[in-house]
Amino acid sequence: MAQAIDFYFDFSSPYGYFMSERIDALAERHGRKVRWRPVLLGVVYQTIGSVPTPSIPLKGPYVLHDIERSARFLGIPYRAPAAFPVATQAAARAYYWLHERDCPLARRFAHAIYRAYFVDGRDISAPGEVLAVASELGADRDALAEALGGEALKARLRDECQAAIARGVFGSPTVFIDDEAFWGVDRLPQIERWLADGRF
Amino acid sequence: MAQAIDFYFDFSSPYGYFMSERIDALAERHGRKVRWRPVLLGVVYQTIGSVPTPSIPLKGPYVLHDIERSARFLGIPYRAPAAFPVATQAAARAYYWLHERDCPLARRFAHAIYRAYFVDGRDISAPGEVLAVASELGADRDALAEALGGEALKARLRDECQAAIARGVFGSPTVFIDDEAFWGVDRLPQIERWLADGRF
Repeated sequence: MAQAIDFYFDFSSPYGYFMSERIDALAERHGRKVRWRPVLLGVVYQTIGSVPTPSIPLKGPYVLHDIERSARFLGIPYRAPAAFPVATQAAARAYYWLHERDCPLARRFAHAIYRAYFVDGRDISAPGEVLAVASELGADRDALAEALGGEALKARLRDECQAAIARGVFGSPTVFIDDEAFWGVDRLPQIERWLADGRF
Repeated sequence: MAQAIDFYFDFSSPYGYFMSERIDALAERHGRKVRWRPVLLGVVYQTIGSVPTPSIPLKGPYVLHDIERSARFLGIPYRAPAAFPVATQAAARAYYWLHERDCPLARRFAHAIYRAYFVDGRDISAPGEVLAVASELGADRDALAEALGGEALKARLRDECQAAIARGVFGSPTVFIDDEAFWGVDRLPQIERWLADGRF
């Protein structure tokens, strides 16, 4: 069995959302599994001295336009959220808590969080909304609520962010295939060829 | 006749070089001409408060690797230059001087400068090398040398950079089709569809 693909993303990243709608099927066509790894771009940006793209002159307005065009190009439903970007600690912590208990549920939760934010306009920065999305999928709301306030889960997400940075992650989405990094949903054609032909 | 496509680039930009090897044939398949517009990314970066990508932690090393992989993916000859990025004032000024006298020669010169830098490892930041490339193509070396030292040509390039920034250019390559901006050689698939189908 070939090594699993690692998929790093922030729940507030539109290009990460687009990748999330494609990467599992693409990997499956090539006999690969995918490990989903939510991280906090804010922590990454502090490390490399970057700022959220929407705040950059010229580039910010372009990217907001490119996100909507790229959604149409890829055929993925998308509505620009009222607040963007937002904090995604609660969503990412909830993901890791679910993942330790029920992997398929964690995957469904990740899809549901992305669609709640980028299609339905829900405020995924609010812990209450994160708990609502999880319980709609059948998760134990009270247990998750208690875990979200605890130190263990905070430490887990901190460790995941540091591990991602140590591996070279500087943006969302970043996909690793056998330690080869691909940054951005626009690398899908290169990812496809890498999986089909091996290195090129 | 459909409106010409505008192609903004810096002669020190590898992704701009890749686009230069594709944009004319792509435009021609859709009945369009291309206006080539060299600019100075350094001036653009001063305006938006950015720095050259190779100097950014994590992102810099990734991008240097991505450039070589993207060249192989696109099937374009590429060898990483010893010095990168380099100043491209002389090359850009020479382009505009040639363009006022002989448009096809200016296009051949732009290709030759890009290939001199990204294939043959020549130092295109040196005015002497720029003059050599131009005279190899049949340009009047002495007249160009005199123009390169003059205020008129400096002002012309300054104006081109300001016009590009005013239009929203923040990186290389940027392609405009009917005022729709596409940044990056990885937007070639979107450019192709835009030309084929009109807006999408």
